[in-house]
Amino acid sequence: MNPNELSKFPTVVVIGGGFGGIQVAKQLANKPVEVILLDKHNYHTFQPLLYQVATGGLEAESIGFSLRKNFEGQKNLRFRIAEVSKIDTESNIVHTDIGPIPYDYLVIATGSTTNFFGNKDIEKYAMPMKSIPEALNLRYMVLQNLEEAILKPSKEERAPYLSFVLVGAGPTGVELAGALAELRNHVLNKDYPELAKEEMKVYLVDFLPKVLGPFSDEGSKAAQGFLTKMGVEVLLNVKVESYNGEEIKFEGGKSIRTKNVIWSAGVAGVVPDGVGKEAIERGNRIKVDNVCRMVGSSNIFAIGDVAAMITDDTPKGHPGVAQVAIQMGQLTGKNINRIIRGEQPEPFKYFDKGSLATIGRNKAIADLGKIRFQGFFAWLIWMFVHLISLMGGRNRVIVFINWVASYMNNNGGSRLIIRKFKPEELASKTEQVSKPD
Amino acid sequence: MNPNELSKFPTVVVIGGGFGGIQVAKQLANKPVEVILLDKHNYHTFQPLLYQVATGGLEAESIGFSLRKNFEGQKNLRFRIAEVSKIDTESNIVHTDIGPIPYDYLVIATGSTTNFFGNKDIEKYAMPMKSIPEALNLRYMVLQNLEEAILKPSKEERAPYLSFVLVGAGPTGVELAGALAELRNHVLNKDYPELAKEEMKVYLVDFLPKVLGPFSDEGSKAAQGFLTKMGVEVLLNVKVESYNGEEIKFEGGKSIRTKNVIWSAGVAGVVPDGVGKEAIERGNRIKVDNVCRMVGSSNIFAIGDVAAMITDDTPKGHPGVAQVAIQMGQLTGKNINRIIRGEQPEPFKYFDKGSLATIGRNKAIADLGKIRFQGFFAWLIWMFVHLISLMGGRNRVIVFINWVASYMNNNGGSRLIIRKFKPEELASKTEQVSKPD
Repeated sequence: MNPNELSKFPTVVVIGGGFGGIQVAKQLANKPVEVILLDKHNYHTFQPLLYQVATGGLEAESIGFSLRKNFEGQKNLRFRIAEVSKIDTESNIVHTDIGPIPYDYLVIATGSTTNFFGNKDIEKYAMPMKSIPEALNLRYMVLQNLEEAILKPSKEERAPYLSFVLVGAGPTGVELAGALAELRNHVLNKDYPELAKEEMKVYLVDFLPKVLGPFSDEGSKAAQGFLTKMGVEVLLNVKVESYNGEEIKFEGGKSIRTKNVIWSAGVAGVVPDGVGKEAIERGNRIKVDNVCRMVGSSNIFAIGDVAAMITDDTPKGHPGVAQVAIQMGQLTGKNINRIIRGEQPEPFKYFDKGSLATIGRNKAIADLGKIRFQGFFAWLIWMFVHLISLMGGRNRVIVFINWVASYMNNNGGSRLIIRKFKPEELASKTEQVSKPD
Repeated sequence: MNPNELSKFPTVVVIGGGFGGIQVAKQLANKPVEVILLDKHNYHTFQPLLYQVATGGLEAESIGFSLRKNFEGQKNLRFRIAEVSKIDTESNIVHTDIGPIPYDYLVIATGSTTNFFGNKDIEKYAMPMKSIPEALNLRYMVLQNLEEAILKPSKEERAPYLSFVLVGAGPTGVELAGALAELRNHVLNKDYPELAKEEMKVYLVDFLPKVLGPFSDEGSKAAQGFLTKMGVEVLLNVKVESYNGEEIKFEGGKSIRTKNVIWSAGVAGVVPDGVGKEAIERGNRIKVDNVCRMVGSSNIFAIGDVAAMITDDTPKGHPGVAQVAIQMGQLTGKNINRIIRGEQPEPFKYFDKGSLATIGRNKAIADLGKIRFQGFFAWLIWMFVHLISLMGGRNRVIVFINWVASYMNNNGGSRLIIRKFKPEELASKTEQVSKPD
């Protein structure tokens, strides 16, 4: 690529190679623009399967896909690993750790991060799971605490190492709970004959009265039933008060001694510095109009988890799911083309394809509009949808083999502690989220 | 397992879950002994394929195998992640970071680590590759330096990031050189259109006059031919003088500016503290008699890379290869059984199955006694031997798929930078070798 040759075309800078950012870049292939895609990692993360990386069922590389590989052959695109420090909306420049990058159009597709709602202690001691490095930390922590448990002589001393408290009963919490219950029910006795299965406890906690909040009541009830049957203790209408690394306390007096608190109770948008306060909505999201344009700007777009498109139909904005990001990304890529051609951008219309969540190794919940079903068939649908959504043929084959192996022998996963997780690293985990690690 | 029930049996402590240690433990299954297997990691590393992890062709988990999973069902065995601090040969106790462990029989199967021959600067700046974490560091370093290179405006500034100097032309150096040459020849242009293929240089350096020193001249010459054809610059009869992180200097005045020096020029045994100086041989190995017993001891054995069995036939001991460790491990397990039964231990006889080394994605060198061949058929043999030697059916299937995919599309490997490698970590890498990370 000769940069001089391209300089006559407008530059579109896309921040973030998640579900949304990738679609924007794809729509701009072979168009008269220069695309610069920035991400702090050199890979796309297939977030819906992060929980399987955390529980050892899949390798990190099966749900990560090289952004360079993905855009091989797209001649008008350059990819850079970069950390954005600030956006200068006056001069149209993105400031990064690899230098300033001028843009004609900017797409903010930075996604969301874990929201601890300002509770610094919980932030310090609880584990988030929004990125591959965080999922790996979680995997190593679980394994290390099982190893630690067998060194303790009494049941009481073992208890905090063997108690897993998942806060937030959305899809992430539910899927993690299922996977940890499988680990307890099928692997623990084989790998750790010193430990009794009953000593390992999995708790799923939410302040709402139901699991899988946004799902139908039918799906939500079925999920709770599956979890309970697998031995997960579901605690609803329960608010977390504090966690000090040793004991989690709930409003009303109940508490659990545990070294393992996993927090998936909320997210907040990752908004780059330089976005005006007037454009920030609840949940630290960027307020956008109906074509995903940041309010008050003519050439900056925000899509996916970081965007809040408040309309009469969506008073809280759209749900933070992959489909919203993908559809916003496709539209925004097309709209930038339209704007460059002098046409009007088209408004966003979300097509809700439905929701899926899996529980354990062979059950799932499917809420596909008015069609709702639960159990084994839903799990087949879940498998199929996730396999075709993965990037890369090799990833699909390898994930499929892993799932078949784990379905058949109930002992999937490699369970290696490749890099020891050090709890003191948690103190700086917010930093980890924003920096490549 | 009830420890009290076992206490009437003698305790065999095995330090190290490598090729040798695993065989000892296996031979003791269902025998009247209690086996305690210690390793600083919770997995076995299939070292012959480490270079493929380093170059992104295989995932770490494909060549690591959970030691707990491997010994599922062996009721007389307990596994512990432990770091040995000292052996007390008087009181028959192994001191570890999880407490003291008494033994009746001790097998030291600690393997070897990178030998920098006392050159502190090289140790500080060059990359070793003897463990999975080290192979991952190497992978991330290569990818990060490619990313760094595209940010540099001139060819001269890019050169040190794009020059890879492999010191040591044994199988590890040769196989790494082949894999890096493949990366240059087939991937670089696709992933980094900003870089010209010719800018990336791969050098293979040895002070010996041939590559693959222990191989036949025929095999060695063929290997050198394959490498040269792939664009690797082979520098023989060349001794490294110094490396400061920016420039490697050779005796005689030649030097290369490079950020990437990978050191596989020698190994040294990992001998636990407490082994008397009189039992240490050249290469920091433990002197053993012809039944692998440490000289001066009746109940301590050393096997594999850490053992030096000096006989008239083997004046320098045996080669540091997996087969020696495996065969010594099998014999030592059987011998411990014999000793417990009151029988005489049998002497070690090494059965040399031959040597294999692969070059690039479809060539190999096979030296099988008097039968020697090179090229594609040797590569098929190499593939077959390595596949059947891997532990775990899933690993075999996944490695096979990866190899087929990479053979067919020449673009294998996921090339993700999961954890940024920080060069300053190299300063403490000797520590990394001995601690789980």
